[in-house]
Amino acid sequence: MTTKNSLVLERRGQLALRPIDLPTEVGPDDVKIAIHTVGVCGSDVHYYTHGRIGPFEVKAPMVLGHEAAGTVIQIGERVTGLAVGDRVCMEPGVPDANSRASRLGMYNVDPAVSFWATPPVHGVLTSEVVHPASYTFRLPDNVSFAEGAMIEPFAVGLQAAQKAQIAPGDVGVVIGAGPIGIMIALAALAGGCATVVIADLSAEKLAIAGQYPGIVPVDIRSQSVKDVVDGVTDGWGADVVFEASGSPKAWQTLLDLPRPGGCVVVVGMPVEATLIDWSLASTKELRFETVFRYAHQYPRAIQMLGSGKVDLKPLISETYPFEKAIEAFDRAVEGRPTDVKIQITMP
Amino acid sequence: MTTKNSLVLERRGQLALRPIDLPTEVGPDDVKIAIHTVGVCGSDVHYYTHGRIGPFEVKAPMVLGHEAAGTVIQIGERVTGLAVGDRVCMEPGVPDANSRASRLGMYNVDPAVSFWATPPVHGVLTSEVVHPASYTFRLPDNVSFAEGAMIEPFAVGLQAAQKAQIAPGDVGVVIGAGPIGIMIALAALAGGCATVVIADLSAEKLAIAGQYPGIVPVDIRSQSVKDVVDGVTDGWGADVVFEASGSPKAWQTLLDLPRPGGCVVVVGMPVEATLIDWSLASTKELRFETVFRYAHQYPRAIQMLGSGKVDLKPLISETYPFEKAIEAFDRAVEGRPTDVKIQITMP
Amino acid sequence: MTTKNSLVLERRGQLALRPIDLPTEVGPDDVKIAIHTVGVCGSDVHYYTHGRIGPFEVKAPMVLGHEAAGTVIQIGERVTGLAVGDRVCMEPGVPDANSRASRLGMYNVDPAVSFWATPPVHGVLTSEVVHPASYTFRLPDNVSFAEGAMIEPFAVGLQAAQKAQIAPGDVGVVIGAGPIGIMIALAALAGGCATVVIADLSAEKLAIAGQYPGIVPVDIRSQSVKDVVDGVTDGWGADVVFEASGSPKAWQTLLDLPRPGGCVVVVGMPVEATLIDWSLASTKELRFETVFRYAHQYPRAIQMLGSGKVDLKPLISETYPFEKAIEAFDRAVEGRPTDVKIQITMP
Amino acid sequence: MTTKNSLVLERRGQLALRPIDLPTEVGPDDVKIAIHTVGVCGSDVHYYTHGRIGPFEVKAPMVLGHEAAGTVIQIGERVTGLAVGDRVCMEPGVPDANSRASRLGMYNVDPAVSFWATPPVHGVLTSEVVHPASYTFRLPDNVSFAEGAMIEPFAVGLQAAQKAQIAPGDVGVVIGAGPIGIMIALAALAGGCATVVIADLSAEKLAIAGQYPGIVPVDIRSQSVKDVVDGVTDGWGADVVFEASGSPKAWQTLLDLPRPGGCVVVVGMPVEATLIDWSLASTKELRFETVFRYAHQYPRAIQMLGSGKVDLKPLISETYPFEKAIEAFDRAVEGRPTDVKIQITMP
Repeated sequence: MTTKNSLVLERRGQLALRPIDLPTEVGPDDVKIAIHTVGVCGSDVHYYTHGRIGPFEVKAPMVLGHEAAGTVIQIGERVTGLAVGDRVCMEPGVPDANSRASRLGMYNVDPAVSFWATPPVHGVLTSEVVHPASYTFRLPDNVSFAEGAMIEPFAVGLQAAQKAQIAPGDVGVVIGAGPIGIMIALAALAGGCATVVIADLSAEKLAIAGQYPGIVPVDIRSQSVKDVVDGVTDGWGADVVFEASGSPKAWQTLLDLPRPGGCVVVVGMPVEATLIDWSLASTKELRFETVFRYAHQYPRAIQMLGSGKVDLKPLISETYPFEKAIEAFDRAVEGRPTDVKIQITMP
Repeated sequence: MTTKNSLVLERRGQLALRPIDLPTEVGPDDVKIAIHTVGVCGSDVHYYTHGRIGPFEVKAPMVLGHEAAGTVIQIGERVTGLAVGDRVCMEPGVPDANSRASRLGMYNVDPAVSFWATPPVHGVLTSEVVHPASYTFRLPDNVSFAEGAMIEPFAVGLQAAQKAQIAPGDVGVVIGAGPIGIMIALAALAGGCATVVIADLSAEKLAIAGQYPGIVPVDIRSQSVKDVVDGVTDGWGADVVFEASGSPKAWQTLLDLPRPGGCVVVVGMPVEATLIDWSLASTKELRFETVFRYAHQYPRAIQMLGSGKVDLKPLISETYPFEKAIEAFDRAVEGRPTDVKIQITMP
Repeated sequence: MTTKNSLVLERRGQLALRPIDLPTEVGPDDVKIAIHTVGVCGSDVHYYTHGRIGPFEVKAPMVLGHEAAGTVIQIGERVTGLAVGDRVCMEPGVPDANSRASRLGMYNVDPAVSFWATPPVHGVLTSEVVHPASYTFRLPDNVSFAEGAMIEPFAVGLQAAQKAQIAPGDVGVVIGAGPIGIMIALAALAGGCATVVIADLSAEKLAIAGQYPGIVPVDIRSQSVKDVVDGVTDGWGADVVFEASGSPKAWQTLLDLPRPGGCVVVVGMPVEATLIDWSLASTKELRFETVFRYAHQYPRAIQMLGSGKVDLKPLISETYPFEKAIEAFDRAVEGRPTDVKIQITMP
Repeated sequence: MTTKNSLVLERRGQLALRPIDLPTEVGPDDVKIAIHTVGVCGSDVHYYTHGRIGPFEVKAPMVLGHEAAGTVIQIGERVTGLAVGDRVCMEPGVPDANSRASRLGMYNVDPAVSFWATPPVHGVLTSEVVHPASYTFRLPDNVSFAEGAMIEPFAVGLQAAQKAQIAPGDVGVVIGAGPIGIMIALAALAGGCATVVIADLSAEKLAIAGQYPGIVPVDIRSQSVKDVVDGVTDGWGADVVFEASGSPKAWQTLLDLPRPGGCVVVVGMPVEATLIDWSLASTKELRFETVFRYAHQYPRAIQMLGSGKVDLKPLISETYPFEKAIEAFDRAVEGRPTDVKIQITMP
């Protein structure tokens, strides 16, 4: 344990920049990373404003932050694939490698996962962190720390895109143009869709999404998503629809969008149970996929950023130095429609 | 058009055995079949008792029946795969072969499908029927007409089983032990499941299902399905859960049954929209499949019956001669718990 | 039958521009198209130089050409999705819609397929052609006739990419940078690959492929493909390897390229049987897919071109007017390494 | 290390029953098992007769045997799912849980796998063995030790069957009726095939396979496999063909057997590279899968045996007590056509 200056959520509504004791022992399969950049995620903000997310409650001071990139400064004795000086990003969730889910390749649904900044596990808005080498990934030279810290949310988009089993040339629809909705749209497009229609009621969010070629923004206050999809697909319907709004209302018309034999990927989680008309779904034999975080997506995301196929830089709205981290969180709480991602850089 | 003696639903609640004009011209790709056996399906009964199913309303006298087997008595000039004298069963739904859905191999979701005994299309409780050769399938010598007339409902079970993408040795659960639930259980078992747990509150239905080795009946009045599944799977959960009850209540506990990464196949159609907790579904990254009738299952069903892998004979509860067809329907309306399938043989 | 001025392969080695009788009756499900642009394919050239491809032998004068775009000038009475004046491209192969393969969605492997410019079926280097509406596809306004005539070879690339079951962010390898190799590389990239390594021994072909971002050209005279793949994938191997050279020699080192659990898609057809080391393949549990033309790819290709995701225009090397069509063929016979596609426009 | 009486392969051709030092320390995630029954595998015999398999050479005395069942006699401190007294069987291969292949769920292709009785790793023809709890599986009460020791070869069959992606009612073909061929046939049948045709030139082996309903034996000395398959499938072809003979000759006619869009699963490994006609394969767009041991099949195999769906007992040809283990091996070397599996029980 060593005392490190960190952004600590003392309790609901109260943040502090202060020293806190964090483990620093580097096990044989671990690396130690000097944190460079951390993105502020909606879940960080939610712990700040509500003190809990579902069953996870902040009962003791907790360091926030789980979207991070940095530099390896120490490696464990058995680590072979990484070296001191490597620029890296890290998966925030570490499962039990021998659980049945992990062994099947689905480590994301292993109930034993320990995930940064999910109570009682500390996050990484701090100077250094120790992490298993297996969940630490080297960044290509042409991928910045800022981009590296964007990989975590992009991995959610990739998980959704992979679940969709996109065939080359598919037409996708994303309901909701929040940060995750945009990540999904980019992942679906890079992942094989020819066109992705994205729907929201915020002109600002749609403008951000619409700057990418291949993404067709639809303002649901003035346009029917179904009409747009019918126009793009000659009335056949979308191959895949991603629900990323979490709004129960979206479900009222969602099933009109996919084509016969199409797919709905549920990413946005409504707080309450949602009404679904299975009878309508069955007339098109729709398939539904659900997504929980991601598994095996970091190497894919890095490959996408390294080859230049996906550019996440336009989504970084503002960067704050660590000493203004609380200001960064307060801005995130504001939820400006022009903000996608706010990042914090460590000293 | 020729006048044939038929079982005619004159209007809701009124059946008659009487002559009715039916088309008899055999097109170049058609065959004419002398009907031997017809099963009584829940939908036939529903048209009798309610006069409609969803948007399909009986507005004019209609011949009932769509689960049929018989003998080819005439073939069209271009037909090559069938001959006069062949014992056959027939798919009741015929799509537009050039629709986009049909060309993709999903002819069952082609909106243009014409389906026997679905208003205004006549069914086959009559002496002869003309049908496309492509949707007429020869029965092996060791498969009786009675079994041939069981292939239609079994095809629904196979469609559900195929959608589940069963891996060899999977554990399945079927909610609901009605005729379709039992068909699904048999299809899932023959289709690769090692064990299928079937749940219902009718001891009689469970007794019928439970006579098949590999099917584990659960009486939900006295047992918890989850406890049984946990026992069978060592607490891991079922690989696939088939919802075949159509009961909204079943959805309250359904998501507790599948394993992480498991699948739910929705076959039973609740009359009203169903509440679903996507958040819970996503923690296990469940997949949901829906089923609309079947496509390409007749050859598979015939192969299963021909090889002896599946035995549907124990599910034929009673056979009535055509002159007692109305009596057969009235018994079906009764819904005796010991009845699975009632059949009618033509003179 | 009407006499139309056409490019006729009289016999091996002898082309003529001359009138020839071609069917012109428009059936109820057909459209008549005025041909605008036709691409010269390797198979056209091969019939010209060799008089046969495998079992297909030119025994009578045959119109060449099967990569075509044009304008609808007449529609059959049952046609609803197309109108006179529509700019379209056409699938050259028409199956029996009721064959077992077609009904399963695999119309490309239906032995009854009738395919343009495959003896004895005439091709479309002529002024007008009658074709089933189901295999005729409207071009978006922003897709030119020249691009429309590129869709046929691009569809082969898409078929290969779809068979690969690309997951978003995959790394692909294409062996062979001929026209089909480049089409595959573009389809794989648009279809989800982050990076596609393409290998050849022609610097000119590699230069053409390498102008697309995301495609990494490898000159096998000076570089090891395996080294490049290891560099791109950190030693893990490619997710998918497309064999598009048809060279038995390529098979000597091919299996070193895919990752454990990876896939090989065989597109290039060696003239003779190829030696394969199944034992080596099995240590990585490789999957092999084969490709026969394409099915259901035209709408996907059109979607890709219409959205601007794929740009095939740089691959059109030269365009000849119809009166110089024989000159165009003779240039194609030359096989200049800087030529990808030569097209002919109709008067 | 403790000295245990074991069956030791001293060098090629020389077996001994003698004490040998084996590790006995039980780590926190390990269990110690008293071995009850061990099956003799072809690879054990091959090390005995040839001293090597491919790159694996017997350079020092090695205990043979890897198909084993026994009783837990000690558990490590972190083990929760197993208890002393549990009857169990064990996977002989243990991978690095944190390798990239293992994390993706493909631990069988992890190059770091340590596999019993593969030089220099000792096997389990000895009294006790220490093994990771994660690769040790409890047997149901109704599954004997003898059956438990059959699970290893059956797992190979299941891996092949799973790779085939059998749809319910498929028709399978197995080329080769050796022990693995029979295991595949049983796995394919239990895994969803309606019928499995098995081909060999040994009437004795075919008689053993043919005793199972649903398995159709074909003696290739007197019958054409293609004719039989055409008869079973009405000329359409088999959905999946498993090559389990390892004979290059089998490849000469193999590709005639699958249906359009069908699958070939390569299990038998020819010593030399095999000629394959990709052009022929592509006309049917065949898919090829390869198999390397198995992953995640033990729970499936146990479920199959526990539910009674598969009965492996008829395949146990003879059981020897440990003191006659060398005699057992010498009989296995004989290769009697009526022998499928020879087992050895420990004192």
